[in-house]
Formats: sequence, C-alpha cells, structure tokens
Amino acid sequence: MIDTQLSVDVLQDDTRLPKVPEPGAMVIFGASGDLTARKLVPALYDLVARRRLPMEFVVVGVSRTQMSHDEFRKKLRKALDGQRPGGVSDDVWDSFCGNVFYLSGDTNKAETYEELKGFLKKLDGERGTQGNRAFYLASSPTLFPSIVEKLGEAGMNRGENGGWARLVLEKPFGRDLASARELNIDIRRYFEETQIYRIDHYLGKETVQNIMALRFSNSIFEPIWSQHYVDHVQITVAEELGVGARAGFYEEAGALRDIVQNHLMQVLCLTAMEPPVAFDAGDVREEKVKVLKAARRIPEDEVENFAVRGQYTRGWVWGEEVPGYREEKNIAPDSTTDTFVALKLFIDNWRWAGVPFYVRTGKRLPKRVTEIAIQFKPTPHAPFAGAGNLEPNVLVVRVQPEEGVSLKIGAKVPGSGFEIRSVNMDLLYGTAFLEEVPDAYQRLLLDLMLGDPTLFIRADETEGAWDVLDPVIRFWAESKEVSFYPAGSWGPEEAEELLMRDGRKWRRP
Amino acid sequence: MIDTQLSVDVLQDDTRLPKVPEPGAMVIFGASGDLTARKLVPALYDLVARRRLPMEFVVVGVSRTQMSHDEFRKKLRKALDGQRPGGVSDDVWDSFCGNVFYLSGDTNKAETYEELKGFLKKLDGERGTQGNRAFYLASSPTLFPSIVEKLGEAGMNRGENGGWARLVLEKPFGRDLASARELNIDIRRYFEETQIYRIDHYLGKETVQNIMALRFSNSIFEPIWSQHYVDHVQITVAEELGVGARAGFYEEAGALRDIVQNHLMQVLCLTAMEPPVAFDAGDVREEKVKVLKAARRIPEDEVENFAVRGQYTRGWVWGEEVPGYREEKNIAPDSTTDTFVALKLFIDNWRWAGVPFYVRTGKRLPKRVTEIAIQFKPTPHAPFAGAGNLEPNVLVVRVQPEEGVSLKIGAKVPGSGFEIRSVNMDLLYGTAFLEEVPDAYQRLLLDLMLGDPTLFIRADETEGAWDVLDPVIRFWAESKEVSFYPAGSWGPEEAEELLMRDGRKWRRP
Repeated sequence: MIDTQLSVDVLQDDTRLPKVPEPGAMVIFGASGDLTARKLVPALYDLVARRRLPMEFVVVGVSRTQMSHDEFRKKLRKALDGQRPGGVSDDVWDSFCGNVFYLSGDTNKAETYEELKGFLKKLDGERGTQGNRAFYLASSPTLFPSIVEKLGEAGMNRGENGGWARLVLEKPFGRDLASARELNIDIRRYFEETQIYRIDHYLGKETVQNIMALRFSNSIFEPIWSQHYVDHVQITVAEELGVGARAGFYEEAGALRDIVQNHLMQVLCLTAMEPPVAFDAGDVREEKVKVLKAARRIPEDEVENFAVRGQYTRGWVWGEEVPGYREEKNIAPDSTTDTFVALKLFIDNWRWAGVPFYVRTGKRLPKRVTEIAIQFKPTPHAPFAGAGNLEPNVLVVRVQPEEGVSLKIGAKVPGSGFEIRSVNMDLLYGTAFLEEVPDAYQRLLLDLMLGDPTLFIRADETEGAWDVLDPVIRFWAESKEVSFYPAGSWGPEEAEELLMRDGRKWRRP
Repeated sequence: MIDTQLSVDVLQDDTRLPKVPEPGAMVIFGASGDLTARKLVPALYDLVARRRLPMEFVVVGVSRTQMSHDEFRKKLRKALDGQRPGGVSDDVWDSFCGNVFYLSGDTNKAETYEELKGFLKKLDGERGTQGNRAFYLASSPTLFPSIVEKLGEAGMNRGENGGWARLVLEKPFGRDLASARELNIDIRRYFEETQIYRIDHYLGKETVQNIMALRFSNSIFEPIWSQHYVDHVQITVAEELGVGARAGFYEEAGALRDIVQNHLMQVLCLTAMEPPVAFDAGDVREEKVKVLKAARRIPEDEVENFAVRGQYTRGWVWGEEVPGYREEKNIAPDSTTDTFVALKLFIDNWRWAGVPFYVRTGKRLPKRVTEIAIQFKPTPHAPFAGAGNLEPNVLVVRVQPEEGVSLKIGAKVPGSGFEIRSVNMDLLYGTAFLEEVPDAYQRLLLDLMLGDPTLFIRADETEGAWDVLDPVIRFWAESKEVSFYPAGSWGPEEAEELLMRDGRKWRRP
C-alpha cells in the first residue's frame, strides 16, 4: 500500500512516547559494501539497543558475493567490533543478528528478485513482518534504474497482503538536471513519490534539524531573519581529508556534485525557507522547494563572477605533508575536478532579496567543520564614541564537530569609558543536553521504517538543486580553468576575492 | 567655571587611551562616616593603583570629629585593611595618603567654610590642584541644604582662579516629589545643574551600563525590543539581609524610597529608553526622562491593583532563623514600613504600549540578586507537534552577582521526534573578559573628576521618578495595610497575585 496516511499519523501523535515502527523487512542491495558495514548496521544495532525497532523487524542483505547467513552476520559483527572495540553488547547483537539474513544474487537477473520475493514471504510467515518492505539501494548508482525496474517487474513495488513497500536511494541522485529527471522518471514508472526515500544524511544530523528548531520555536530569531537585518549568510562544509580511496567516484563527481548539490543546498534551504505550516513531509519540503525556485540561476556567461572551482596541490595538514590531488592514486594528472567550490547565491524573494549566500566546501582544508553563519548588518548608528570598530552580530550554527549554537554580541569592556568588544554566547549541544546525540542514520532509518519522509529529499528538491547548479556544471565542463590551493589552506585566492569584491570576507571557523 | 564644554571633550576623544582628570581637590563632607571608609576610599585607592588620577589630586575630609591628618589617614588605612586583609600595597597607599587631609569643623558654621576655602587655596599652591574642587556630600541628607547654602555664601560654588566646582549628592534625594523639588531649588540657588552630580551607584555598575551596550551596539536586539515582541519585563533587586544597623533611616524610608525610586527606576529607564543620539550626558539623560514622562501615573484609588507593600516576619535565611522586621532593634512594633515592594508599571509610548514592567525589591529574600528579564512573546505558531509546552525566549541581564547575560532559547532535544527544550546561552562577564570588573564607585568618582555627568542623575530624572511613585507613597501613607512575608521567601502572596491576575508569574532568579 502507498503510505499517504503516515505523515498524518505522525502529526496526530502528540504523546512523548517514542513511536515504534510497524513490523517489516529492510532489504539492502549492495549489502557487502562499505555503507552497510559502516553506517547502516551500526545505526540498526543502536536502534535495537534503544528498543526503537519492533521484534518483527528483519534485515535481508542482497549482494553478488556468495555468503551464508552466518558468514554475513559474522562479517557485520566484525565491522561493528572494528568501529567500537569492546563496545558491542552480545545480548543486543544476538537479538539483532537473529533477524539478519543474506541472499546472494545478481541484481541484473530477474531470478534474484523472484528468490527474494519468496524469501520475504517466508519471513512474513516465520517472523511476522506483515508484508512490509523497505528496499535500500546501497549499491552503485548506475544500478538504480535496473534494480527499480526489476523490483517493479517482480511486483515488489507494492507490499504483500496490504503491506507497504518503500524505496531508499543513496546519493548521488543524478549528475545534472537531465540525468536526475531521467532517473526520477525511471523510478516513478514503478514507485509513487510517497514511496521514495532519497537520503541526504545531513538531514539526519541533529544540528541540521536544529536550524529549524531554532528558527521556528523561538520568537526572537524570525523577526530579524531577513534582508532587513541580515547582511549575508556563509555556509561552510570543510573537510581535512583528501580524496582517499574514492578516486574513481570523485574524479567523475567533484565537490559540486558530492557536497554542494545535496548537503549544502539542503542546509541553505533550511536556513532560508519560510516557516512551514507544520513539521511534516508535505509542508517542510514544499517550503524547501520554494527556496530552490527562488534561487537565482547564474547566467552561464557570468559563472566566473559567482563560482570558484578549486583543486588542492601538495601541502601540509596537521604537520604532515600530503600529496596534491593530481598526484593521488587513480587521478588523472591533468584532472580539473573540483575539490573545492565557492559559490555566491541569491534567493530572489521578499525575505532575502539582495542578501548573498556564500557557500563553500573543500577537501584538504585546515579542519573538518560544518557551520552556518548568519551575519547581521552593523548597527545603523553607534552612539558610543570609540566603538568604531564594532563587529556585527553573527549567529553560528555549528553542525560538526562540537555541535552547538554561538551568538557573537558586543558587550561593554569592564572599566571606564565605553569600549565595546565582541564576545560569544555559546550553547554546546554536548553539555546542554544529557541525551546522546544520535548518528544521522539512526534517525533516518527509524523515520524510514516509521514511514515519515520529512527528512528525505523529494524529487522536486533534487531537481531544483540541480537546476540551480547546472549553469556552473556546464561552464566548468567546457572550461579548463581550475584555481589551485595548497592542501591545508582555506582554498584558492579566487575564493577570497569572490567575497572581497563585495567588501566581505570568509570566516575562519 | 561651569563645565559645559566637558561632555563635548569626552565625545571628541576617540583614542583608546584612558583619560586622566585635571588636577583637583575632592572634599568629602561627612568624612568620618561609613560611606567614606567603605566605598569612597577603596575606590580612590584603586584609581591611584591603576594610575587613573593625576599626581595633583587631593582628598580633604571634613567632619565634626577632632582628628589630625595622620589620625584620619590611619583610620582610613585601617578600614581598607579590614576590607582587604593583606591586599593593600604600601607603595600605592603611601602615594595616595600623602594627598589625604582632614579638617574638623561644624558644617553649620560659616567659619568652617572659610577655613576650608583657605586650606584649599593653600593646596592649590602646594599641590597644584589648580582651583578645581569637587564637594562630596556624604553626610546626612538633612544637612544638604545647609552645606550647599554655606558653600555658596563662601563663594565656593565656583572654582578658584577659573577652576571648576562640582557638587556630589548621595541619595536619598528627597522623600517625595515635593521635597525633591524643594531640595533642587535650594541647591540651584548656588549651583548650576551642570555642576551637580547626583549619585546612584547602580549606574556605575558594569552590567547596568551593559544594558545600553547590549541594546545599542548590537543590531539584533533593537528590532525585537518593543511591544511587538516583548510580552513583559521583570526587574528584580533582591537582598538577603534584613534592616541591620540602618533601622533609623529605614523606618523613615522603606524599600520604595531606598531602592525603587532610584536603582529600579534607573534600570527601568535604561531598559526602556529610545536609542540616544550619542552616549553623553545630555542625550542619555534626555532619553531616560522621556521614559519617566511616559510612565503611567497610577491613579490613587487604584494603587492596590498596581502596587504591593510587604514586610518580612520571622523566618529562615540560609538555615538561620532571623527576626521579623517589627522585632528588629529600633523598629516600631506596629511599623508599616515597606521592606518589600512590587509594582506593575506601564510605559505609555509607541514602543511599550501594553507591556507591563513588573518591578520588585525586598529585604530578607532568599538570595541577593539583581536582574532584568526581558520576556518575549511566544512564537505565533508552533509547527512542531509535541512542542506544546514551549517556553518563550527570555533575555536576562544579571547585574549581580555573577554579572552576565543569559538568553533562554528553545533547541531540539537530541533524538528522534522533534521535542524542543529550553536551554540557556550564557555570557559570564567574569570569564568573557580578562579585565577586572571595577567597583561602581571607581567609575563614578573618575567620571566626576573627568567632569562627565552621563552616569549621574539629573534633577528632572529624580523628580520624574518621584512623580511616578507619589500616588503610591500617598496611598501607603494613609493605609495601614501591609502584606507580610516570612523572611527567606520571595515576598508576600499579594505579589504573586499581582502577576497571576495577568496570567504571568515571577521568575525565581
């Protein structure tokens, strides 16, 4: 069944008791891969430990590798132990892994799906999974259309016996607007939009969700959250790491596709959107789409004034010399792939007209940090003599690490006179709340099983984000130009100039 | 000379170098009293230690007690040692006390002033004080008119040889509007308003000044600082102590005159005033007077709906049983003096129309704390299900102890769902600034010598504050009613009811 009713259920539930999903099976395609071991299984293990999943919940891994159920379980346990030495409870594990199964098969062949179908039916009977299935596509994105088609051909795009079927897609979701549209069309031949859960794990992060909490559960921020009071916004997603083992994928993608199109645009949407009527899948995603619609398309002949493509060269990170991108393994020596992107975006609506949104991301930057900084305008008038070099207010939402909120304000320096100095009021998530900050995947997998797609990406969101970035993609595809920056710096000079031209500068987070 | 030029000088000085006052003499009437030993001398000692006073600065104590210069100096040193055991530098003290002198005399007699005049002239020659004098009236307020008159008759209302003369008055400044007006007329027969420095030591406190710094050096607070976004304001000045040794004075005054008319009304003015054009004596005090003008006068037949008079009875404070007010030494057994006051005030202007300012003060409350709390309205709409018991934002400026600013915001509780919880973003003055927070008197005495009256009370301010409170004073003078509260509680029930009638409640700071 298509679960149109579910978001309404979520809304109507106003008790504080945690909701427990209905029984069901989660089928992971590409189960022998990295994502399953590193993210999905630890998150499921934690959900079991916290008793957030029903007893009638099973995991079925599907992959080409030949393995028995037990071999698969042992492999997962080994990976989990590797992540949490000594931190895995045997009781919890036993309770979890008794519900883990494995099916080897070629996802290009119809038999695999027939076999899977039969196996799931058997589990319905033996384990009470009630015909509900979530198909998690953790395989290579090139396989998505084929898997979806074969699921559909096998009739698995509907749950059994009135149960539900949901489809989970990992990014990348296309590589430009055209391919994303094509993929959406392919998928929707078999699955309705309400069945589709496109994952951007950033939306599962507590502090990303806290952007909405801050904006819409406080009366003091919304009145100043507009072009009347905001000078500009900076969003930074910085990584210390280089391309590492992802060379093959990264050469094709680059930072714009890997980070900007999904994480950065999502964070921008949450920062800029109008208050949703309710926190549900329809209202929240509708507001995000409105931001993407209002985002100004960069004219292709002006891309250089709005976008900077960077690539790291040999340099030093934390006292260690690291190779340049073109020197990395499996990278073309003349690659122009972007390992750094800086963009200047505008949201052309009443709230944000004229306010630049500067976003940047990069590999081999000085530190790993993700933050949203709302920089407010200076005071219209400074009544205090000697308060000339007053810094404007900045509200920073730190997504990682050290999740928190920080507000830079001017306060009087103790002593005679009236000197003002900027100081920070801080809220550190880790100390303000006793509750453990759960991993993003825990939240998202639970929402998936609960049938709440609020924190997943709708088709029009992903297409909207591609639409905004397409002019940049096309321009860069033809241009050979890339600006270099030494590993361990904050990106190429051109990125600094992008802001300097506007009389502004990047934060050093 | 009358120092009309001085506030302009202060404005034009835009260097960060501390200003040093001109040479001059500070004459303290009532020099053998408590204030001199407890407040003035420690503050002057600290100013000398910090090299903020010129070498040509002298102090002349005047009092009836017979003492030599040296006896006076020893008395002051003893008092200072008593306050700071082991913490007084002999070098600093020697440098200070070589400039301290004493003159015994009856302030009712003209000879005293002739003698003082001659002595000051002598110091002009020997110590280079250049004819500048500040007369500090630390004596009983009943003596103010007489001292001022005799200073005037002796021609000391002008400095010598083109120097300046300033007059400093300690509170209480009158006991109602009529007496305050009379006192102002008496004084201005000899001194111009620009020469008069009425002290309210609250204005010397760093965090009180920080109210202005917060409001006018940050762009984010002013837009929400109005009836559009503020639900109400609470100002609390709570003391743990009882009446102690001040019984004689307190029986006549009560909390309304002792705290509300000056400290509380000043803090209210700084909280509510419009942005001043500049931070100078004219502009800042003009804006405060405008608040007092806009403050609604409570109709005398409605006082009970707006004001609560309380008096403490026997009770417990910090585990110790303490006597009730009427049981204290030198207090009438049927006294109706207010040891607690709660008022509901309105500022009838565009910014504050309809926003209640609840103010309270009391002795024998559970702890010593002064704070201003701006309670904002709730969000107009709560999109999050289960966020029903959301607390509104509160900005708290803590004046003492633990000076700082605290902003209560709603943030997402880590975990699934979208539960919002209130948490505090804190700025602790003591940890945010390495600079020592100076005592209020240090700041005020320095400003006095610099000729900057910005942080002193102008005649129309003190009269305006009395005018607001006069209906309450008149009503209480006739009524025998007083509401009792046990020592160690937050005041009488009637104070709680004052807010409960409006659907609000007092904070527990």
